[in-house]
Amino acid sequence: MQTEAQRDALEVVLVAPRNPLNIGAAARAMANFGFRRLKVVAPFAPTWREARSAVGAPELLLDAVESATLGEAVADATLVIGTGTLTYRRPEQTVVSLPEVAPLVGRELERGGRVALVFGPEKHGLTREDLSYCQMLVEIPTDARQPSMNLGQAVAVCLYELALLPQARSIHQKPTPEAETLPYTEAESAVAPSGRLELVAGLIEETMRAAGYSPKTMQAANRHDLRLTLRRLTLSEHDTRRILGLFRRILWRLKHTPIRDDKSD
Amino acid sequence: MQTEAQRDALEVVLVAPRNPLNIGAAARAMANFGFRRLKVVAPFAPTWREARSAVGAPELLLDAVESATLGEAVADATLVIGTGTLTYRRPEQTVVSLPEVAPLVGRELERGGRVALVFGPEKHGLTREDLSYCQMLVEIPTDARQPSMNLGQAVAVCLYELALLPQARSIHQKPTPEAETLPYTEAESAVAPSGRLELVAGLIEETMRAAGYSPKTMQAANRHDLRLTLRRLTLSEHDTRRILGLFRRILWRLKHTPIRDDKSD
Repeated sequence: MQTEAQRDALEVVLVAPRNPLNIGAAARAMANFGFRRLKVVAPFAPTWREARSAVGAPELLLDAVESATLGEAVADATLVIGTGTLTYRRPEQTVVSLPEVAPLVGRELERGGRVALVFGPEKHGLTREDLSYCQMLVEIPTDARQPSMNLGQAVAVCLYELALLPQARSIHQKPTPEAETLPYTEAESAVAPSGRLELVAGLIEETMRAAGYSPKTMQAANRHDLRLTLRRLTLSEHDTRRILGLFRRILWRLKHTPIRDDKSD
Repeated sequence: MQTEAQRDALEVVLVAPRNPLNIGAAARAMANFGFRRLKVVAPFAPTWREARSAVGAPELLLDAVESATLGEAVADATLVIGTGTLTYRRPEQTVVSLPEVAPLVGRELERGGRVALVFGPEKHGLTREDLSYCQMLVEIPTDARQPSMNLGQAVAVCLYELALLPQARSIHQKPTPEAETLPYTEAESAVAPSGRLELVAGLIEETMRAAGYSPKTMQAANRHDLRLTLRRLTLSEHDTRRILGLFRRILWRLKHTPIRDDKSD
């Protein structure tokens, strides 16, 4: 689901929402994930377009289409998908889990179809009558002990999944070189070469001796451990500069402190 | 992320949330996706535990732990992940997109680690100071024109992704070989929790002062950098023991060397 036009061919349809704050929250989530077309069927509160919860999406709310019936709202959709908690009923349609439905929606939009994603009212969800307009039901994989989601949160979760670009998901599919997924921002990406780590190791070793940390019998073992540790941490050039600076200072101080220095603490 | 125990090792941490309804919404989303451990740092409203929006999750809210600082809240976490909109800032940590972070979290929980997922206050998100406690930042792939999500919706989307069973995702993706080669070797698997890193940071800072390394004007900046660096390096418990040992020795020596110690070189 990549092009703007394709996203505009996906509509979010809220059936009989009671709380305008939830309509606003749905609108906000749509804006967050790049969708714009909202339909509201038989809303309870006539002032729903003013919902302050539609942060960043007031125009989306103004442009929303109100209709009297679900049939009318989804009239031009080629794929109508119902949402809701299915724990307490046995649906008549195919049930597809949310991660599974994304590629189906993507395909429908790619071939020029129009998709309606339908959410029921807060209290009881879509009725059997509502569901009869749906080709399939999408199920958000929730915990069986508390399956019922807040409307705005359910919209957010569905749109998050549907908006994910294939590239985003493909990250799990292709093996990526370890280094690229590991812990560094670009600024920190210049990994220190081995020779530099040896410099760090040498200086820390010297400090250990100067501080009387490393007894002679342990020196070889400590050197080995230190080398291993420095390799494992994947220090950047910048890290090594800081470590060298600090240890040079410590070492200088250890060697040149002629008298007890009480003010330093 | 499959067992109950593993889910209980993931904590949602809300920093300075202003609106109790959002705290309740976060609690509801947690219950929806089978998570139970909530921490609230310096909440604005003292009555937050009564939030009516915590539908199906009043006990979760009662059991939530309140703390005064983020440092305290994440002290026992081995992986601290910040969340937020990154459009307007250039973060100092690695940024990982939400679909990518799920396998990292799963792996951390599988090997017995504790994960904290940290959300900032509604208005401005996590501060730079907050972020310095985080090893990585997770980015929800939102539309650049309206990236800022509602707190409750952001929590829902993150937990949806983290709760997805591998089976659910495997429908469109093959088992991930790279997940197994990611961050840690088995021998070094006991990652030092956040509180331990603070101990290390405090001791290094004290040493910096004692060695006259850190001028007063640079102390805040050095502290910040140090915290970031320690998070990024993924130190093990064993590493921290060694570092603490060395710096305690250095510090002792800096404070108790009465005369120049020539034989130490």
